[in-house]
Amino acid sequence: MSRTAERRGALRATAAAEGLDAVLVTNLLNVRYLTGFTGSNGALLVRSDGSDLFATDGRYATQAGTQVPDVELLVDRGTVPALARAAVQRGVGRLGYESHDLTVDGFAQLEKVLADAGGTVPELISVRRAVEAQRAIKDDDEIEALRRACAVADQALAELAAEGALRPGRTELQVGRELDARMLALGAEAPSFETIVAAGANSAIPHHRPDGTELRDGDFLKLDFGATVDGYHSDMTRTVVLGHAADWQREIYELVAASQAAGRAALAVGADVVAVDKASRDVIAAAGHADHFSHGLGHGVGLEIHEAPGIGPLGAGTLAAGMAVTVEPGVYLPGHGGVRIEDTLVVTDDEPELLTLTSKELLVL
Amino acid sequence: MSRTAERRGALRATAAAEGLDAVLVTNLLNVRYLTGFTGSNGALLVRSDGSDLFATDGRYATQAGTQVPDVELLVDRGTVPALARAAVQRGVGRLGYESHDLTVDGFAQLEKVLADAGGTVPELISVRRAVEAQRAIKDDDEIEALRRACAVADQALAELAAEGALRPGRTELQVGRELDARMLALGAEAPSFETIVAAGANSAIPHHRPDGTELRDGDFLKLDFGATVDGYHSDMTRTVVLGHAADWQREIYELVAASQAAGRAALAVGADVVAVDKASRDVIAAAGHADHFSHGLGHGVGLEIHEAPGIGPLGAGTLAAGMAVTVEPGVYLPGHGGVRIEDTLVVTDDEPELLTLTSKELLVL
Repeated sequence: MSRTAERRGALRATAAAEGLDAVLVTNLLNVRYLTGFTGSNGALLVRSDGSDLFATDGRYATQAGTQVPDVELLVDRGTVPALARAAVQRGVGRLGYESHDLTVDGFAQLEKVLADAGGTVPELISVRRAVEAQRAIKDDDEIEALRRACAVADQALAELAAEGALRPGRTELQVGRELDARMLALGAEAPSFETIVAAGANSAIPHHRPDGTELRDGDFLKLDFGATVDGYHSDMTRTVVLGHAADWQREIYELVAASQAAGRAALAVGADVVAVDKASRDVIAAAGHADHFSHGLGHGVGLEIHEAPGIGPLGAGTLAAGMAVTVEPGVYLPGHGGVRIEDTLVVTDDEPELLTLTSKELLVL
Repeated sequence: MSRTAERRGALRATAAAEGLDAVLVTNLLNVRYLTGFTGSNGALLVRSDGSDLFATDGRYATQAGTQVPDVELLVDRGTVPALARAAVQRGVGRLGYESHDLTVDGFAQLEKVLADAGGTVPELISVRRAVEAQRAIKDDDEIEALRRACAVADQALAELAAEGALRPGRTELQVGRELDARMLALGAEAPSFETIVAAGANSAIPHHRPDGTELRDGDFLKLDFGATVDGYHSDMTRTVVLGHAADWQREIYELVAASQAAGRAALAVGADVVAVDKASRDVIAAAGHADHFSHGLGHGVGLEIHEAPGIGPLGAGTLAAGMAVTVEPGVYLPGHGGVRIEDTLVVTDDEPELLTLTSKELLVL
C-alpha cells in the first residue's frame, strides 16, 4: 500500500468513527498529503467503502495519472462540484467537509450543487482540521523530507559563512538573496518563507524584513530561514556577531541558548505544549527578560511552515512521537539588538531528533 | 493622499453605493493592496466615515507603523474578532464582508463575536470580490512594479542564454534552478510560480514540472516563468529550439506566434474577453490544431499570478485601460512537443504596452 493510501485509510477510519459516508477534502495541501498531487487545482473525495475519487482540471490530467495512480480520476474544471455530484450519484448520505477551508461562497455553491444533483441530498458535516490533525504526526517519508530540507539550509549557511559573505559592508538584502539562491542551488524548491536577515538594532525586531541596512562591525546578525524540499519546510534561526562580541551580547546569547536547550529538553511524548513553552520561558524570565521574549516558543512544520502543534502560553494539547516542531526562544532589546536561536526537531519516544545541525555556539565572524 | 489611501477611498465609494457602513477586508492580498502591509497576519475595516482601522498582531506592530502610517492600528492576535468588536462599538449597522475569502468557520466566529460584543448586531452583507474588481485595473505604481518584475525575467533569461546554460546535456531541473537563482540575484523576491522547464516531448505538457530530463539536440525547450517584485508577478513563456529546427517545429512555432500576435492585437479597451480569446484561437483552429490548444488565452496578473480578468472561451466581461494581462496561446502535440508564447501586457487607450520584452523570433540555440 502506498504511503498516501495509508493516509487516506487513516482519514477513512476517522470518518467512519464520525458516521460519515465520505469526506470532501478541499484544502490543497491536505489533498497533496492524501494523494501526492502537487498541482494548483485538485480536490478529493474519500469514501468509507474505499472507492475514492480525485478531481483536477485538464492541465493536470497527465500529472495526476503519474502522481495519483491509485485513485479514480475525474477531469473537470470545477473540481468540487464534480465530486459533489459524484457523491450524490453514489448515494453518500453523510458528507464531511472542511469548514476551516471552504469559503462562505464555496459552501453555498456546494449546497446548491448537492441540491441540484437529482438524488438524495447528503447532510453536510464539518470535519474541521481532521487532516491537519493527522498531518501533525509525520510518517517516515515526511521526516526524511524534513531532514533533507534542514540539510539544505545548514549547508547554505555553512557555505556563505565560509565564503565570507557575512561581513561588514554588505547589506541585509544581499545576504538574504544569497542565502535564497544558495538554497535553490542546493536543491530547494523555494525558501520556506521570506528569509529574515536582521543586522544591529534590526535584530531586535522579531520579524524584520531585510532592507539596505549595512552589516557593521560589532553587530548582531540574525538569520531566520529555511528550505522547502518535496513540499516540506525547514526552519532555523542563528544569530552571530560580526568582528567581536561585547559583554551584553555574550550575556543575552548565552541566556537564549540556555533557554533554547531547556525547551529542547522538554520535548517529550506526552508533554503539555504549555509546559514546554514554560520550561524555556522560565529561563529567560528568571534573568529579568520576560518582557523581551514576545512570542510563542515554537510551532509544527511540514507541508506548511506553521502548522499544528502550536507551542506557546496559549497552546493546547500534548506532544506525540513523530511531531516535527521548532524551538525558538528569543530576547529582543529594542533599539539595541536581539538574539533568537531556533531548531527544527522531531519528537520521539527517546530524545528528540535534531534536524537543523548548524552549531549553536556563539559564532564571531 | 497616499496611493493606498486612494484605493481605500475607491472601496469606500463602492461600499457607500451598496449602503454599507463599513467593509471588513480579510483577504491578506486585498489588505496589502489597501494598506501596503506585507506581513502574514492582518485585517482591515474600511469605514464610510473615513476612520479606518487596521489590525495585526504584536510581531508586526513596528512594521505596521512604518508600512501603514495613515490608518489607526489595533494590535491583537485575533485580528478579525478585534475589528468586529470595534465595528459594533462604533455603531456599524451594515457590515460588508468577503464571502469569497472568509471560511465557514471564520464566518461562524465573526457572527458570534458580533452577537457577543454588547451592542446592536450589524447585518452582514457579502461584498464578494469587490477589492479584486478594483485590483483588476492597475494604477501607475502597480504598472511600474510589473515593469520591473518583467524586466527581471527578461534579463535572467538573456543572461542564461548568453552563458550557454540552455544546451544539450543539462537537465530541466538545472535550468529551472538557475533561472530562479538568477531572478533572485537580479532583485526578485521570489519566482512568480513554480518555474516550468520542459524539453522535447515534455514541452507538449502544458504545465510540466521540471525533472531530470536532459536537453537534447533538436528539442523544443519551453520556459514559462516569472519574477515577483514588490509583490507583483510577471509571467512569460518562450519556446526555443536546441541545435537546429525541423520543419514541423518551425511550422507550429510560426503558427503560435501568429496566434499570439492576433491575441495581442485584440487587446483593446472595451474588447470582450471571449472575442480576444477567439481572435487568437481562430488562427490555430484554421490550421487544424484547435484540439491542440487546450487552455484559455490568458489571465490578469498583479499581486496574484492569476487574477481578474480571465481571457478565455468561458470568460465574461470587457477589457479596461490599466488591466495587466497575459496572452499565451499554445499548440501541444502529445508525445512530440509543444510551443507556447506568452507575454505580459497592459491594456491602454492606445496600443497595449508590452512588458515582457524578450524577442519572439524563433531562437535556435
